[in-house]
Amino acid sequence: MKAIYAGSFSPPTLGHLDIIRRASSLFEEVFVAVLSQSEKRYLFSLKEREEMLSRITRDMQNVRVLSDEGMLVDLARRVGADVILRGIRDASDLPLEMQMAVANRRIGEMDTLFLVCSPQYSLLSSSIVRDCARHKAPIEGMVPPEIVEDIYRACATAPDSK
Amino acid sequence: MKAIYAGSFSPPTLGHLDIIRRASSLFEEVFVAVLSQSEKRYLFSLKEREEMLSRITRDMQNVRVLSDEGMLVDLARRVGADVILRGIRDASDLPLEMQMAVANRRIGEMDTLFLVCSPQYSLLSSSIVRDCARHKAPIEGMVPPEIVEDIYRACATAPDSK
Amino acid sequence: MKAIYAGSFSPPTLGHLDIIRRASSLFEEVFVAVLSQSEKRYLFSLKEREEMLSRITRDMQNVRVLSDEGMLVDLARRVGADVILRGIRDASDLPLEMQMAVANRRIGEMDTLFLVCSPQYSLLSSSIVRDCARHKAPIEGMVPPEIVEDIYRACATAPDSK
Amino acid sequence: MKAIYAGSFSPPTLGHLDIIRRASSLFEEVFVAVLSQSEKRYLFSLKEREEMLSRITRDMQNVRVLSDEGMLVDLARRVGADVILRGIRDASDLPLEMQMAVANRRIGEMDTLFLVCSPQYSLLSSSIVRDCARHKAPIEGMVPPEIVEDIYRACATAPDSK
Amino acid sequence: MKAIYAGSFSPPTLGHLDIIRRASSLFEEVFVAVLSQSEKRYLFSLKEREEMLSRITRDMQNVRVLSDEGMLVDLARRVGADVILRGIRDASDLPLEMQMAVANRRIGEMDTLFLVCSPQYSLLSSSIVRDCARHKAPIEGMVPPEIVEDIYRACATAPDSK
Amino acid sequence: MKAIYAGSFSPPTLGHLDIIRRASSLFEEVFVAVLSQSEKRYLFSLKEREEMLSRITRDMQNVRVLSDEGMLVDLARRVGADVILRGIRDASDLPLEMQMAVANRRIGEMDTLFLVCSPQYSLLSSSIVRDCARHKAPIEGMVPPEIVEDIYRACATAPDSK
Repeated sequence: MKAIYAGSFSPPTLGHLDIIRRASSLFEEVFVAVLSQSEKRYLFSLKEREEMLSRITRDMQNVRVLSDEGMLVDLARRVGADVILRGIRDASDLPLEMQMAVANRRIGEMDTLFLVCSPQYSLLSSSIVRDCARHKAPIEGMVPPEIVEDIYRACATAPDSK
Repeated sequence: MKAIYAGSFSPPTLGHLDIIRRASSLFEEVFVAVLSQSEKRYLFSLKEREEMLSRITRDMQNVRVLSDEGMLVDLARRVGADVILRGIRDASDLPLEMQMAVANRRIGEMDTLFLVCSPQYSLLSSSIVRDCARHKAPIEGMVPPEIVEDIYRACATAPDSK
Repeated sequence: MKAIYAGSFSPPTLGHLDIIRRASSLFEEVFVAVLSQSEKRYLFSLKEREEMLSRITRDMQNVRVLSDEGMLVDLARRVGADVILRGIRDASDLPLEMQMAVANRRIGEMDTLFLVCSPQYSLLSSSIVRDCARHKAPIEGMVPPEIVEDIYRACATAPDSK
Repeated sequence: MKAIYAGSFSPPTLGHLDIIRRASSLFEEVFVAVLSQSEKRYLFSLKEREEMLSRITRDMQNVRVLSDEGMLVDLARRVGADVILRGIRDASDLPLEMQMAVANRRIGEMDTLFLVCSPQYSLLSSSIVRDCARHKAPIEGMVPPEIVEDIYRACATAPDSK
Repeated sequence: MKAIYAGSFSPPTLGHLDIIRRASSLFEEVFVAVLSQSEKRYLFSLKEREEMLSRITRDMQNVRVLSDEGMLVDLARRVGADVILRGIRDASDLPLEMQMAVANRRIGEMDTLFLVCSPQYSLLSSSIVRDCARHKAPIEGMVPPEIVEDIYRACATAPDSK
Repeated sequence: MKAIYAGSFSPPTLGHLDIIRRASSLFEEVFVAVLSQSEKRYLFSLKEREEMLSRITRDMQNVRVLSDEGMLVDLARRVGADVILRGIRDASDLPLEMQMAVANRRIGEMDTLFLVCSPQYSLLSSSIVRDCARHKAPIEGMVPPEIVEDIYRACATAPDSK
């Protein structure tokens, strides 16, 4: 089974990497898709986020990183994914996730499987990483070491981006 | 990937069958395991529940029904499952499910994937089916037609069982 | 429209009375039904609870108190209620309430309407009243003044009852 | 008792119709009110939504459809409603609904009754219908058949409206 | 231990005052901080909110009111607070509160303690007070009597502010 | 301010220790109270649990471990605590915690402060530790190293205790 795992990854966190690593050992192939909503200003360009994800997943042979500005289900069909994979951090995520899963079955005839985040990452989000980096607080333990410097640099130059 | 989907199935409902059918089209093989907690009195014996599940899943070639009185992770290892599959009905299921998923990773080094129930089955449970059958209310639309009669018969003879 | 509002009322609280009073001004008639699960030991007998409810609702002409040991939907049909009325204290009540509402539509073809508790009573329950009374803590502000003495007396003589 | 059931109905779904039908059999009269927040761009005009609702409720004699740009409690008073009726889809709806119910009691001295959505509609929303229609996915089973064509047509011409 | 309790207090409610009063009897000193997000238009200026809070807390010797446009953790360090204090109204507040508490430990090495709102204030918010005042509904019982007139006056002149 | 932190600690986990350590740096004195409900069979005696807690908190000068079979508020009064301290793991803990906090204010005129568990411990519980130990799964990372052996030994001899 091939899974697609999508997000804005702005920036990718250890929580994202935990889901990707577990997915990599379960699925035949894992597509990690950086999606952008065109109206938002992001801290990193689509290409930069794709490059960071490639760097931190380079030891996993069956993970393929890509980016797109279209709809997830269309992309999923195009690359040959069998299922959408989502990470759940806590119960308050579920109502919206359930609505999206039902919509994706209707729109794209594609089912969604969920993995629960490892507990140490349950309160971690890209937005908290950005807040910490902007205040020069430590972000080790929140993101992979390879991208710590990129994040501090980006936060210093683009303080208000998502 | 091979998945194991376990429950007490007392009796199996259309909600369970929906999860099994979707799993059957996603996974290479699906083990459906009837588990019993020895201290409970069930409406149907382990063998009867196994037989009903076999009957209602007989059109799915990659579904194998089995029953056991031990621990799920031990059974999963023994039959060669790669992952535990669980159905989620609503957000209030999640705190307990997350604890079990973490425990199963520790105890059995086995991860858990979740499918969200189709909405029409989100308030359906084996216990509501038993309540309806005991009051001779209609249960069509709640369970597969092949087992409607078995349920009315069992409820008439064992009114207090789980 | 005639509504039936049921509970174990062991004892009735100001939260129950708030729902009954608001229901009394909305519905043509309100049946307040004391239900007992036979296996439980209650602080007050069915008759005592019925009498207390009658006492505290005596100024509402369209409220009729009754008690029963059977099923709610059967009683509702028998007295001619059109709808079941339930009070909701907070979101964690909802999953179980939704399951019961669906079951009652199936079993008794009777719908359920919900009123949200007034906020000052959202954390109030009969069991907290019993705990307070057993420790001789004040219960004014939790129950109608007319029954304060009954509760202290009952708690003194039957310390472990529900 | 006369109830008022309000929403933006953009478009009305089978979930809305289920609440209206059940309300119609419980209440003496049901006012279905299309409300608009002036700052939003809607897929359908207030009059179009009122017309669609009239069309799909035409078999219910005690349902009266109307539209307004003011406050719900003011409209409720003006038409002579005794109570506000709301549908609840799941527990995550409740915190906001409870706040609105309390505010409407204070502002308009009007109470709110809740009906729980039938489970098959618990994940259905107008916004999911719009998403599906924009991607030309099937929406039968989500909205009344009489308005399917209106929705596809509107989504084709106004892709970004609410 | 010295605590800092922050909010936008637009306007302060009896729910806020309840937390402040309980904190005042627990902590050595309580800093009540009016924070403003610069992009929002508020009903009252920072100074007016600070003055109202001073007026309603004047009987508590160990409460000190202040206002700031910066970050909470920076202010907390500057005034010498040992801990951030937050009020919780219900479970739906918690996911966001937990994320902020974790971020504040990382950014400012400062822990957060929570008090649960008294139940009568659990559905009360500044925004409901503003809605009621704009509709000339009674707000006694929602805010301290000393500031009722200020609120009606402000709502009459600035109908759309937060 | 002196706080009392109570539980059954059967066994104490790293989640408990995290709360105790953070409390120790906030409060003047922290009483850690092992409470037992007499009807339950525990894995460790009251004295053994008290001894384990003393061992793992011995580096914190202002922590005092004690045990009791009575009510928490009575014990709190007796030792001179000013406030009850509770750890919150996720939002589903809150409804019950809020009821207990309100009851303790009424019964014992004592307020409750909450600390949120560090995220890595949010899915950790004494019961998961017992389950893991019974299956000889690793429990390092779940409990303090000093008590790992005690737990394996107790689980081997008393497989069914709480």
